[in-house]
Amino acid sequence: MPLPVRGGSDAKLLRVIPLGGVGEFGRNMMVIEYGNDAIIIDMGLMFPLENMPGVDYVLPDISYARKIKDKIRGVFITHGHLDHTGAIPYFIRELGSPPVYGTRLTNGMIKERLEEFRLERHVRLIEIHPDDIIQLGVFKLTFFRVNHNIPDSIGIAVHTPYGVVINTGDWKFDHTPQDQRPTEFGKIAQLGDKGVLLLCGDSTNAEKAGYCISEKEIQQNLEHLFSKSQGRIIIGTFSSLVSRIQQIINAAEKLQRKVAVSGMSMEKVVALASELGYIKIPKGTLIKIDQTREYPEQRLIIIATGSQGQETSSLGRMSRGEHRHIKIQKGDTVILSSSPIPGNERAVTNLMNNLFSLGAHVVYNKTFDVHTSGHANREELKLMFGLVRPRHFVPIHGEKYMQMHHADIARQIGIPDSNIFVMDNGHILEFNSKGDARLSVEKLLIDYVMVDGLGVGDTSNVVIRDRQVLAQDGMVVVIATVDGAGKLVSSPDIISRGFIYVKGADALLHDVRILVKKIIENHNIADIENWNSMRGKLRDDIGKFLFQRTEKRPMILPVIIKV
Amino acid sequence: MPLPVRGGSDAKLLRVIPLGGVGEFGRNMMVIEYGNDAIIIDMGLMFPLENMPGVDYVLPDISYARKIKDKIRGVFITHGHLDHTGAIPYFIRELGSPPVYGTRLTNGMIKERLEEFRLERHVRLIEIHPDDIIQLGVFKLTFFRVNHNIPDSIGIAVHTPYGVVINTGDWKFDHTPQDQRPTEFGKIAQLGDKGVLLLCGDSTNAEKAGYCISEKEIQQNLEHLFSKSQGRIIIGTFSSLVSRIQQIINAAEKLQRKVAVSGMSMEKVVALASELGYIKIPKGTLIKIDQTREYPEQRLIIIATGSQGQETSSLGRMSRGEHRHIKIQKGDTVILSSSPIPGNERAVTNLMNNLFSLGAHVVYNKTFDVHTSGHANREELKLMFGLVRPRHFVPIHGEKYMQMHHADIARQIGIPDSNIFVMDNGHILEFNSKGDARLSVEKLLIDYVMVDGLGVGDTSNVVIRDRQVLAQDGMVVVIATVDGAGKLVSSPDIISRGFIYVKGADALLHDVRILVKKIIENHNIADIENWNSMRGKLRDDIGKFLFQRTEKRPMILPVIIKV
Repeated sequence: MPLPVRGGSDAKLLRVIPLGGVGEFGRNMMVIEYGNDAIIIDMGLMFPLENMPGVDYVLPDISYARKIKDKIRGVFITHGHLDHTGAIPYFIRELGSPPVYGTRLTNGMIKERLEEFRLERHVRLIEIHPDDIIQLGVFKLTFFRVNHNIPDSIGIAVHTPYGVVINTGDWKFDHTPQDQRPTEFGKIAQLGDKGVLLLCGDSTNAEKAGYCISEKEIQQNLEHLFSKSQGRIIIGTFSSLVSRIQQIINAAEKLQRKVAVSGMSMEKVVALASELGYIKIPKGTLIKIDQTREYPEQRLIIIATGSQGQETSSLGRMSRGEHRHIKIQKGDTVILSSSPIPGNERAVTNLMNNLFSLGAHVVYNKTFDVHTSGHANREELKLMFGLVRPRHFVPIHGEKYMQMHHADIARQIGIPDSNIFVMDNGHILEFNSKGDARLSVEKLLIDYVMVDGLGVGDTSNVVIRDRQVLAQDGMVVVIATVDGAGKLVSSPDIISRGFIYVKGADALLHDVRILVKKIIENHNIADIENWNSMRGKLRDDIGKFLFQRTEKRPMILPVIIKV
Repeated sequence: MPLPVRGGSDAKLLRVIPLGGVGEFGRNMMVIEYGNDAIIIDMGLMFPLENMPGVDYVLPDISYARKIKDKIRGVFITHGHLDHTGAIPYFIRELGSPPVYGTRLTNGMIKERLEEFRLERHVRLIEIHPDDIIQLGVFKLTFFRVNHNIPDSIGIAVHTPYGVVINTGDWKFDHTPQDQRPTEFGKIAQLGDKGVLLLCGDSTNAEKAGYCISEKEIQQNLEHLFSKSQGRIIIGTFSSLVSRIQQIINAAEKLQRKVAVSGMSMEKVVALASELGYIKIPKGTLIKIDQTREYPEQRLIIIATGSQGQETSSLGRMSRGEHRHIKIQKGDTVILSSSPIPGNERAVTNLMNNLFSLGAHVVYNKTFDVHTSGHANREELKLMFGLVRPRHFVPIHGEKYMQMHHADIARQIGIPDSNIFVMDNGHILEFNSKGDARLSVEKLLIDYVMVDGLGVGDTSNVVIRDRQVLAQDGMVVVIATVDGAGKLVSSPDIISRGFIYVKGADALLHDVRILVKKIIENHNIADIENWNSMRGKLRDDIGKFLFQRTEKRPMILPVIIKV
């Protein structure tokens, strides 16, 4: 891949470069660079887009970071979610294993993931407290607590020679958060008072009016639901929503229910977070899933993975009657405490159909507020601007149109249009010593780096395009065996998959065979060595023939074997 | 396909049989049968589910209707949308060309579609007025106007020997509808007073609380937006939302803007509906799209197809700067007056990203009420129950869980649980002369009948499964040419598509070639004629090998050619 950038050789400029996470959701990663120093904020993964069949994850494109790896003084992680941490195991060694800084829970979650990759010994994890001050090269870093749906989330202030750059991470304001640790408004306001050069802010909910519902309200709603339910309660949520898990446990304790946890990732997170003190479980509340039989149903709450309808998840198995310990039945209340991630709508609908069919009383966000987002709505975004009063603004995290919404808010709040930069991944924002900003004319090429099975980055766009074609209309392999004189030795072999059902298509394939014979027989003997031309003609003519007959365009793969 | 049903030979039973449209959205079709008479209500198509790649439409399974075709006295269509009309061209002749009954606009839209299939002369379309009474065999049919987002929508009351069966079609109550023709409450109440045996009701919005927003409010909101916009207004919506189109024209007239229509289906619908008097366009308001240059921007409204982000649609082309007449720019207001159909979310997001990037002011339902659903919310459903007071109830139109929500409402309203039937497609609801109902133990097998290119019903589940596998991990064709002694004549040919990018996978495919050689060399000569076993071994061993190396499971297609 060409790298049209000088690698930051101009020591006079401060450079801010997103390598992922702008104009999209996930794979957040940002480089901040000055002279011979650079730091990275977040190193996350993204779930594949709908048009990337078969792909497991998408990672940031670290080509540029690799180029400046000797400058990288540290990687700072805002919180423990995979869209901010998930690329660490794939890339950290390639980047020369710089130290990774995170708060306690964040580091705990990173460590667990590194262990899955057997990399825990190769990465230096450094725990930070939000009150810490860290000096790395020319950069001084300070931190402020923000609210999100996982505890220990922070925003990061990078004090550079030209001013303070703030990256909010994922955040919302919640005056009554689950962990009773509201956003550190004081710190943010102080930064604002001293002057902030650049704010890079979370745009996820920039299209939503008003304020997020507080986690406190969700807790109250859960308590209300729990108190009304006479039978067993099964609640599906993300294992990463650590705050939600605590809320459920709190409500369970109040209503004297036992809590069992089902699903591997959920068990892991509960174990880790309670070991680190981020989930507090009263003694005797937690029971094992196979102990649930020993308790009356009205004394039970089961927290399960699978609220996105994932087939092999705990709730997925329950919904199909395939869970070993929990059979859902009339009298059960199932609560889906999450909202469908784009692309998962069909799976969630199927899950709901199954749960309703089993007779469960199903509660979900459309019918009752049992979930709230972890991202700030418009009024909160305005308040953040009011506190920070940045000189420049870059909306991060979110589709292009959400960035634009966020930019609109910045404009409304009084930031001049010329100081707002709706960046793409790979754009380079440069500041000079006066703190003036401009987008560099150079722009890094940022690819989708796809994790596909064991491969990282070896699934190219060609492969994805082929998969799309194969998915639409299938394929037809045509094998012609010819002798030295270019004559067919036997009738051509034709294999088709995903095109039309072959039993119903004998006549069609018979006609293809005749067409192949005709093409090969009419082909000039002098050309016979020119197999590419022959293959091209077979591909074109068969393609046209099949389209006329079926209006489908299967992938045609002609093979000529000379014996 | 086996048909385990007797074809309604028991003349003593009234039978109600959905052949599509329950437990799903679309392909609505219902048979009502008594003795030697049957009628059909609706004959629609469904858009393919997310797991049906390459499929164009899904049709009802008419196997049973085909079997009783001699009894079919008529097909009654509730309104002109494709999910209620779209299967007519595919099936009507197979069913012996029974007459098709619909209101004026409904028939106009059906006729236009039949012309596309060149079938207009083969189908007898009979126009009905909501006050008509039609006697067909033992059935008397009466009708009542309902509101929906297309004019001329009706509910159907089938007066059978055992009582009245009502099929609501798609409906909502709107006291201030666009066409100023509210639901005929009086007729419905009268039916209720006389006693209704069975209500089959639209469940689409049964999970939504309250009432639909009135079309009047949408019109007011559009007027408000139009009056605030200083530049050109481009409004994307469905061509099938005839009422919305009229609202836009009304607002345009008020604000003295000219209206141009862009997109083939939109042009057709506007022409048809205005010809039939269902869209009223003041003289001089409508201009051609290529005349838009002649007017100042603040005098223009363009109605375009493509609010679902369809690539080749009018708005799709505008959003990419590829529209011949309309280049979107700063100052334009683009209104998306529809909501994304499940499965289209990504396309709509891309559309929005493009429109925002062009600098347009984009308004959509999340930021302002510019669209309302055509289906009743919970409070409206309750009112319908209050008016009809049916003895039995069947929720139709919607996912299983939405049917269950609707059934819950029926229960709340006082219909006994034993009289509520949450049917599947193919279930047979039987009534005896006392009007007692039960689900027949027999159940029809209802398949997805897929339209895929020119083929109807020839895309089987096998083909779809193959497409899914091909989309996930691609495929590898292995071609081994062997001589009579079972020895390889040359190195095996390997072709892979959609698996991993071949340039990066030379070593892997080299190893596959070695593996193929080894398998064939070690194969017992006596078995060599048993090619199936050899192919099976190649498939298994190569599959295992590739999974170990890549954790991917491409489709393996081994071909052995004997020369």
